[in-house]
Amino acid sequence: MNTITDFISYYGQEVEKELKHIFPKDWVIPERLEEAMSYSLFAGGKRMRPILTIAALESLNGPISSILPAAAAIEMIHTYSLIHDDLPAMDDDDYRRGKLTNHKVYGEAIAILAGDALLTHAFYVISNSLRMKEVPAEQILNLVEELSAYAGPKGMVGGQVDDMDGEQGITNIHQLEKIHIHKTGDLIVFSLRAGGHIAGANAEQLKALASFGYKIGLAFQIQDDILDIIGDEQKLGKPVLSDENSKKVTYPYLIGLDACIEKVKQLTEEAKQDITKANFPNPSRLLEIADFLMHREH
Amino acid sequence: MNTITDFISYYGQEVEKELKHIFPKDWVIPERLEEAMSYSLFAGGKRMRPILTIAALESLNGPISSILPAAAAIEMIHTYSLIHDDLPAMDDDDYRRGKLTNHKVYGEAIAILAGDALLTHAFYVISNSLRMKEVPAEQILNLVEELSAYAGPKGMVGGQVDDMDGEQGITNIHQLEKIHIHKTGDLIVFSLRAGGHIAGANAEQLKALASFGYKIGLAFQIQDDILDIIGDEQKLGKPVLSDENSKKVTYPYLIGLDACIEKVKQLTEEAKQDITKANFPNPSRLLEIADFLMHREH
Repeated sequence: MNTITDFISYYGQEVEKELKHIFPKDWVIPERLEEAMSYSLFAGGKRMRPILTIAALESLNGPISSILPAAAAIEMIHTYSLIHDDLPAMDDDDYRRGKLTNHKVYGEAIAILAGDALLTHAFYVISNSLRMKEVPAEQILNLVEELSAYAGPKGMVGGQVDDMDGEQGITNIHQLEKIHIHKTGDLIVFSLRAGGHIAGANAEQLKALASFGYKIGLAFQIQDDILDIIGDEQKLGKPVLSDENSKKVTYPYLIGLDACIEKVKQLTEEAKQDITKANFPNPSRLLEIADFLMHREH
Repeated sequence: MNTITDFISYYGQEVEKELKHIFPKDWVIPERLEEAMSYSLFAGGKRMRPILTIAALESLNGPISSILPAAAAIEMIHTYSLIHDDLPAMDDDDYRRGKLTNHKVYGEAIAILAGDALLTHAFYVISNSLRMKEVPAEQILNLVEELSAYAGPKGMVGGQVDDMDGEQGITNIHQLEKIHIHKTGDLIVFSLRAGGHIAGANAEQLKALASFGYKIGLAFQIQDDILDIIGDEQKLGKPVLSDENSKKVTYPYLIGLDACIEKVKQLTEEAKQDITKANFPNPSRLLEIADFLMHREH
């Protein structure tokens, strides 16, 4: 595992394996529900959030063996949010990553319930599986509390509401940033802090992980908008210029493409400095991921 | 607080007060989201589940002061499930308890997100507020784990899927019971076990609370169906015979009204025996609630 691509690919597969065993063996779950949950869990996600969790843990030399359930739970939360965001009442998307969205395959009712189930079950995975790994109860409770705060009404869900409400009236980059800080930033920040908590991070390190997370989260979002203009449709799995065609307010629309490219660089640099300034015994993977995300093509 | 009606009314108000303070003071939440969450939280629910939680705690002489956050969290889970069940893609209901449903007031997107927010935030309230009350971390984790199991894909959400899938093909009472055990029974059982856990119940007592819960849950459901036929529209807040008009498969439809009335009595009796057989130091409220539910008129 010398390169960051190896690291991402190896742990992406480990998370994938973990996601295949999220239910206790004796549980009876309606077949169609389990199928709908699996469909979206294995629809080709990049597993960026779980990878960040693992990298944050590694930066503090934490115990890799106990991190996978937390990483899987985070991916479940991310997946539920995508299923609900794609619904006809929300963004009304038929495709995601080149595949039909959940409600196009299973119908709206099952898609809503599959999302509810993934959200609820993420808390089971965190509380049950981490206990089995003998992570102390206090530490697990930190995760439960932070996950519900970052993913709830003040965090991710609140960001989605602001996004829908604000879509028409955004006229400057600060308004757009405010939305993204919650809609996508908060869960990224939690992903990093979760790794930190399990590795026993101190307050300064947790703060640095949060700051790093908001910056790479924002850079990620801007990079998304850039790729929508100059990306390769083949690699993206969706048509370019889809934002422009759907009249979405984007970073390039507000500040232009060149300023966007510059901003991604600057945010990435600042994010890396947050980590290097705090005392992390083994920060290299975190720093490499920041660069990797900046240079990604899909 | 001599009578059970006093008990229910007093603790109903206490839960109501607790629900008014579910957010930390410094949280910023989109106004429309908070409004939509509140609308359904305060839409005149009977607070039956929180009352059961408190009665279970009292049956074991547990500390009343630390139970209210758990009780509030359970009501939040119940409320989220009603908001999502009422959606056009699900039961498509315009009214609940005589008031417009959430999506009729706030639109479908906000209704979905208000449900997501209530579900997520319930875990915050359980983990954060119970810690403040100095409930031991292990005990809180028991609650988090059981709540996610009883409310998730194997429990309440699974029951809702079975309900939708099975609606056409139900031909006997066992199929209907199986659906209700999860759709409504599981959260009622959790409500009771939550009170048990916080009061330090032993395994036998927890088992008795679960068995009691499934039975009164079923009795409650059958009583609902009975009231839909012989109830007072004024007291019910909805027209009678609405089940028949919507072609819903109900207990009276399957076994007739008289057998239903008999079954409610029998289940209530058996439920009470579950409690009297196990060793509860102070079981009177639980027993009274079972009778109260059997005789309710709305």
